Amino acid sequence: MAALQIAGKTFSSRLFLGTGKFGSHQEMEASVLASGSELVTVALKRVDLQQEHDDILQHLHHPQVQLLPNTSGARQAKEAILAAQLAREALETNWLKLEIHPDPKYLLPDALETLKATEALAKLGFIVLPYIHADPVLCKQLEDAGTAAVMPLGAPIGTNKGLRTLDFLEIIIAQSKVPVIVDAGIGAPSQAAQAMELGADAVLVNTAIATAQYPARMAAAFKLAVEAGRQAYEAALPPVRAHAMASSPLTAFLDA
Amino acid sequence: MAALQIAGKTFSSRLFLGTGKFGSHQEMEASVLASGSELVTVALKRVDLQQEHDDILQHLHHPQVQLLPNTSGARQAKEAILAAQLAREALETNWLKLEIHPDPKYLLPDALETLKATEALAKLGFIVLPYIHADPVLCKQLEDAGTAAVMPLGAPIGTNKGLRTLDFLEIIIAQSKVPVIVDAGIGAPSQAAQAMELGADAVLVNTAIATAQYPARMAAAFKLAVEAGRQAYEAALPPVRAHAMASSPLTAFLDA
Amino acid sequence: MAALQIAGKTFSSRLFLGTGKFGSHQEMEASVLASGSELVTVALKRVDLQQEHDDILQHLHHPQVQLLPNTSGARQAKEAILAAQLAREALETNWLKLEIHPDPKYLLPDALETLKATEALAKLGFIVLPYIHADPVLCKQLEDAGTAAVMPLGAPIGTNKGLRTLDFLEIIIAQSKVPVIVDAGIGAPSQAAQAMELGADAVLVNTAIATAQYPARMAAAFKLAVEAGRQAYEAALPPVRAHAMASSPLTAFLDA
Amino acid sequence: MAALQIAGKTFSSRLFLGTGKFGSHQEMEASVLASGSELVTVALKRVDLQQEHDDILQHLHHPQVQLLPNTSGARQAKEAILAAQLAREALETNWLKLEIHPDPKYLLPDALETLKATEALAKLGFIVLPYIHADPVLCKQLEDAGTAAVMPLGAPIGTNKGLRTLDFLEIIIAQSKVPVIVDAGIGAPSQAAQAMELGADAVLVNTAIATAQYPARMAAAFKLAVEAGRQAYEAALPPVRAHAMASSPLTAFLDA
Repeated sequence: MAALQIAGKTFSSRLFLGTGKFGSHQEMEASVLASGSELVTVALKRVDLQQEHDDILQHLHHPQVQLLPNTSGARQAKEAILAAQLAREALETNWLKLEIHPDPKYLLPDALETLKATEALAKLGFIVLPYIHADPVLCKQLEDAGTAAVMPLGAPIGTNKGLRTLDFLEIIIAQSKVPVIVDAGIGAPSQAAQAMELGADAVLVNTAIATAQYPARMAAAFKLAVEAGRQAYEAALPPVRAHAMASSPLTAFLDA
Repeated sequence: MAALQIAGKTFSSRLFLGTGKFGSHQEMEASVLASGSELVTVALKRVDLQQEHDDILQHLHHPQVQLLPNTSGARQAKEAILAAQLAREALETNWLKLEIHPDPKYLLPDALETLKATEALAKLGFIVLPYIHADPVLCKQLEDAGTAAVMPLGAPIGTNKGLRTLDFLEIIIAQSKVPVIVDAGIGAPSQAAQAMELGADAVLVNTAIATAQYPARMAAAFKLAVEAGRQAYEAALPPVRAHAMASSPLTAFLDA
Repeated sequence: MAALQIAGKTFSSRLFLGTGKFGSHQEMEASVLASGSELVTVALKRVDLQQEHDDILQHLHHPQVQLLPNTSGARQAKEAILAAQLAREALETNWLKLEIHPDPKYLLPDALETLKATEALAKLGFIVLPYIHADPVLCKQLEDAGTAAVMPLGAPIGTNKGLRTLDFLEIIIAQSKVPVIVDAGIGAPSQAAQAMELGADAVLVNTAIATAQYPARMAAAFKLAVEAGRQAYEAALPPVRAHAMASSPLTAFLDA
Repeated sequence: MAALQIAGKTFSSRLFLGTGKFGSHQEMEASVLASGSELVTVALKRVDLQQEHDDILQHLHHPQVQLLPNTSGARQAKEAILAAQLAREALETNWLKLEIHPDPKYLLPDALETLKATEALAKLGFIVLPYIHADPVLCKQLEDAGTAAVMPLGAPIGTNKGLRTLDFLEIIIAQSKVPVIVDAGIGAPSQAAQAMELGADAVLVNTAIATAQYPARMAAAFKLAVEAGRQAYEAALPPVRAHAMASSPLTAFLDA
């Protein structure tokens, strides 16, 4: 399997993890380890910068884990940019998952504010990974704005509905010059495998692992599925057919 | 992962392989090994009983591989029963994948002849695994007739369309007292994972591996996907939801 | 629109109605009239043969309405055949919708008993319309047994899930020499239209109308949708395409 | 059926038509008439403003038909605004279908330029109906910018794939204060009916009619389907269920 590169950094795992909604920090940490993930998002709104040893962060201190602070809860570019700058100083990373969603119910991304913030943050030296609608035109504009990757959603976040944006993901993957990471809606390992079979470079999973009955075991299942999907992509799946190739009768055997 | 039992025999792999349509016997053997499969079907019509060392069979002589002769090409119960008896003598196994399909175009199974043959073969001491339509009522009748497992199809054989019979597979899995093996139409690792997530006991794959560009690598991908799907089933996937849980704003962080 | 013929009788409407689950006989009658249906099923188990003027039947006495008694609740061929004979005498029709379903939960049809009963009833002079699984091989066997039409299900009855058996309905329609009526699972006018677009000869709808908030208005909606779907089939829909035909720029207009 | 209002104008038909890709102007005109449509788009790039009696326009002069010039081919807001102003003068209508798509292959809309142009054109007194991605956040921003309606796509334009953006259309319909018109990808009457059942206010169809074997007959089929879908929406479809309500046996009838 070819390794994934984002902004010059090499990842051997193509499964990224979100850290929200877990029952405990211990469960979250066990899931991160079981997943083999090397890129893990943490919501800035859940980080307590005042405290020297913030609880959630100390559970993410593992040599293979690159922290990816996210701006979840930001309602416009301005809020997101301010948060990014505070985060860079406090967490000592210029990697940023950019999330701007004005509506607290569906948490769907704001295309315009996301593009505006991506442009500004890229100029400020951030490695920006924006969460966006599966909009192929926007993806190209983000490329021009200096994005490090694009993170189109598969379905409304938190729904576990899978790749409802399939037709658009295919176009995005065909056109993109930066890595494509399917970011929301993936609710089962089979769906993660499907994204990889399509040619996505990676997937980000959170709800399906964090709210499973056994999160760490589910994380291990996703790890296998992402590897399966990537291997299938590289081994080139045969196309869908209208019907089987015709079969010969059993007569020869019976006459033998 | 709990092991699978069929007719008293334990299987640690839940991926079964068909051996048709490979480019060569070598490629087939490499794929069987890469898949980790312990149950491999071979079409009787492709076995030459006259020869001492039939070519296809010598490529399947591996200690972990249980041979499952199939009656592909049989048009009625009578033909299938005769073939089964010849196979038992020649191949020294009473395991049998029962396939009866009168139509050479779609290769769809004949419910009535399959039930009749299952009944007869079970009485003759065969371990019968019948390939059938995803018909929940027929599955219960096969149970009564002494079947060792049921093998409902996911889509028309050879089409790679995936789990088109999903709604019926769910009912079959909920009702069955014998193992349920999804048998036809599985065209990608993601689809194999999905069958396992539903609670299927195993899947049988052939076309998607044999006609991939790199069959052995595809077999390895299916191996991972089947494990992923089974682990996800055991770790209990969360349900599909209408929308995300509401999110809090970023204000607290920004004010910190 | 070409008219539909079943057993020599011509139907100008391709929408058949079931009469169960309505809130009242009045509502049922209004829905039958609004639907324009000319073939209406009535469950024998709901008919009181002792009474001279059974309530449900008197609401179905309309010149355009052909009654189609059904054997819903029958668990084997024997019960269904007995019921058919009593019905023929009492209701003075040899038309029969054959339903044999041993399981009271999913009400899925029994392929074997249905084939057996079809054969016997056809010999007894009945016009048999059997409710069956979307099993193409069974459909051909029913043809040989003298069925007047086949009634494959679209989804488990009562679920409103639509054409979940699409891939199999396509094969049945391509192969059938008798009319194909999609019989269960149709939960919205769009799904009825889709069945007609595929080339089905008619659809039978019950739950989606009877349990709608306004049944007669829903019946009228189904009437339009069935006509729309049939007309689209006859006007030959264009195929699905991977992308649009390329477009020219606006420059010429702007330069004018 | 309640009538549809857009910018104060009442429409009794909820089927809008595009006029591209027809074999002839005569065929286009026959289809418009058969569809009953009262709002018909015409691409500015196909209109010859120099000629007194442009060919395509004279085939659209019918009292019930409101012309909706579109800016198809425009690559940015600037081009679209210029074209709109020329069109208003020449065609004597301030109605405008705004289409901005930089990529000539997929013809997917540009969210940012569309929002910018909508804002400018609304201020200039245009009735703007923008073609957009099924992006719920963008739809609310267009509302704030003074749009008269939103026209989210169902699938990539010209593909006939149907409502691939279903999950997002549902959110848009639930949140919108302006009419929602599903605009691209609708390839069959069943799909138009489905959009109306979801609660869309109208649909716009072009390719599926213009490239059908018999366009005017297909237009008539769409007319029925749109009415069917709207009536079903108003009559309130019952929900999808996991299985049927349990059924009673036939015994009572047989014992009668």
